[in-house]
Amino acid sequence: MNEIKIFSPATVANVACGFDVLGFCLDSVGDDMVIRKVERKGIHITHIEGFDLPYNAEENVAGVSALAMYNAIDVDFGFEIEIYKNIKPGSGIGSSAASAVGSVFGMNELIGRPFNKTQLTEFAIKGEALASKCEHADNLAPAMFGGFTLVKSISPLEILEIPSPKDLYATIIHPQIEIKTSEARAILPKEVALSNAITQWANFGSLIHGLHTSDYGLIHRSLQDVIVEPYRSQLIPHYHDVKQAVIEVGALGAGISGSGPSIFSLSKGLETAQKVKEAMSQVYSKTNIDFDIHVTKINTNGIKVLN
Amino acid sequence: MNEIKIFSPATVANVACGFDVLGFCLDSVGDDMVIRKVERKGIHITHIEGFDLPYNAEENVAGVSALAMYNAIDVDFGFEIEIYKNIKPGSGIGSSAASAVGSVFGMNELIGRPFNKTQLTEFAIKGEALASKCEHADNLAPAMFGGFTLVKSISPLEILEIPSPKDLYATIIHPQIEIKTSEARAILPKEVALSNAITQWANFGSLIHGLHTSDYGLIHRSLQDVIVEPYRSQLIPHYHDVKQAVIEVGALGAGISGSGPSIFSLSKGLETAQKVKEAMSQVYSKTNIDFDIHVTKINTNGIKVLN
Repeated sequence: MNEIKIFSPATVANVACGFDVLGFCLDSVGDDMVIRKVERKGIHITHIEGFDLPYNAEENVAGVSALAMYNAIDVDFGFEIEIYKNIKPGSGIGSSAASAVGSVFGMNELIGRPFNKTQLTEFAIKGEALASKCEHADNLAPAMFGGFTLVKSISPLEILEIPSPKDLYATIIHPQIEIKTSEARAILPKEVALSNAITQWANFGSLIHGLHTSDYGLIHRSLQDVIVEPYRSQLIPHYHDVKQAVIEVGALGAGISGSGPSIFSLSKGLETAQKVKEAMSQVYSKTNIDFDIHVTKINTNGIKVLN
Repeated sequence: MNEIKIFSPATVANVACGFDVLGFCLDSVGDDMVIRKVERKGIHITHIEGFDLPYNAEENVAGVSALAMYNAIDVDFGFEIEIYKNIKPGSGIGSSAASAVGSVFGMNELIGRPFNKTQLTEFAIKGEALASKCEHADNLAPAMFGGFTLVKSISPLEILEIPSPKDLYATIIHPQIEIKTSEARAILPKEVALSNAITQWANFGSLIHGLHTSDYGLIHRSLQDVIVEPYRSQLIPHYHDVKQAVIEVGALGAGISGSGPSIFSLSKGLETAQKVKEAMSQVYSKTNIDFDIHVTKINTNGIKVLN
């Protein structure tokens, strides 16, 4: 096999109480990529569709992670990468993570899978760091493993796969505004009240327990963020209106997806997830901000081969 | 049935990364109590053995929780309480919690169990508050439910029962020094670094996952406390020596039990738990501080009727 086509999914990081460590994987939203073994050594990005991204591998997220892996193997051939980008960069649903994961996953398939998924994520961290200026894996891990993932630590990298209740759906609205990741980081305080931190880890531990036991009521009561949301929600117009509207139609909870501007919501069952879409749409239809909304099952497989 | 004898177990609260919300229940260490229905209305503490505690119900932890429950029921009789106290007050293994839970559990049994365990814990919180000056349930919950418990919230009270791997043992050393709870509280900062809080909830979520999956390696890697231990460990002589010694003989982890001075350790298997006892003993034998050490299985049943 000299060529492989893969689907690299979008992801939601942070998930309310799981700031910086939890993420989950979306099912129907993601990028397609083609990875090809070629005689010419090195990493060559030969085609990009969807968004205007650099062709120079060292300036491209998918290229940087590919180079990190390429430098760790000893081969007398190279790789071409084609990127068919559907996830808008800066939308807050793991656009750069999908690129970073896609190239290394595809290359690994073509050379007989010498690396496991955690090792591949290590390479992908290098690509992600190009986009977000810091090494983190809270979008990479769910894109690579699927389902819910907890990044216990970055160094050494340890990723835990948390069970996902089978009837869990996500609805995600992407308001077409720009939030710079640097701004979303800068707005966060360096210190937080110990009492709030305790509330946050009580909720986070409860969410992990709720996911293990498929306790939707507990998932609902745990999807609270007392640390980050009070700050970052200021950057997203109508955030609290959206949140209130989705809870009213039965969502389990809602929060900022990654560093925004997308807002995610989780629901039990497709029917409620669709109602959540309507509720989100009603809020943003009254504004002059363009938006799009995805309804998707939780993707428990993660990145996959298409051909 | 007019009289009941119960065993109310000692407990470990906080459990490293689970400050203020997690606890677990000990098997062979605890108080005995006798609760008796009598004609004379009210709550009457008629016998106390082991330690010098007040007989006036309003000044006694077991009495205060009993009164809270007594005021919520409409009966034309009263209760006598005998306390055979084995858990030294102030040792950091839930002495007051055992008393607070014991009286209401016993009374509930005698009147046909009108209250569930969460409701009983609500009454017990009133007794615990007498001892610790604040309403918390991180010792009460494991004493009442057994195993590991996560107190998700106090108001409303929500207690989650976390699975306990079957081969998990605790070793607890109690150095005979006094640490005032007020001092242990006062030493804590009001604010903590966001980065440390993130580390703490990553560990806490990982510990909950590790308990669900009986992943002893993960439990080991998760039993880290970057928030409270740096402060409170200063109050416990030779704390870091004990911790290092128990890890060297194979313990999964160690930490301050409650607000100290007891130090708990968790191990896979009785054999390692016994080695941990030896290691703890060696450290403290070199000092002039008296101490005692308990080795116990995790008690998955909690408080129980003895007759």
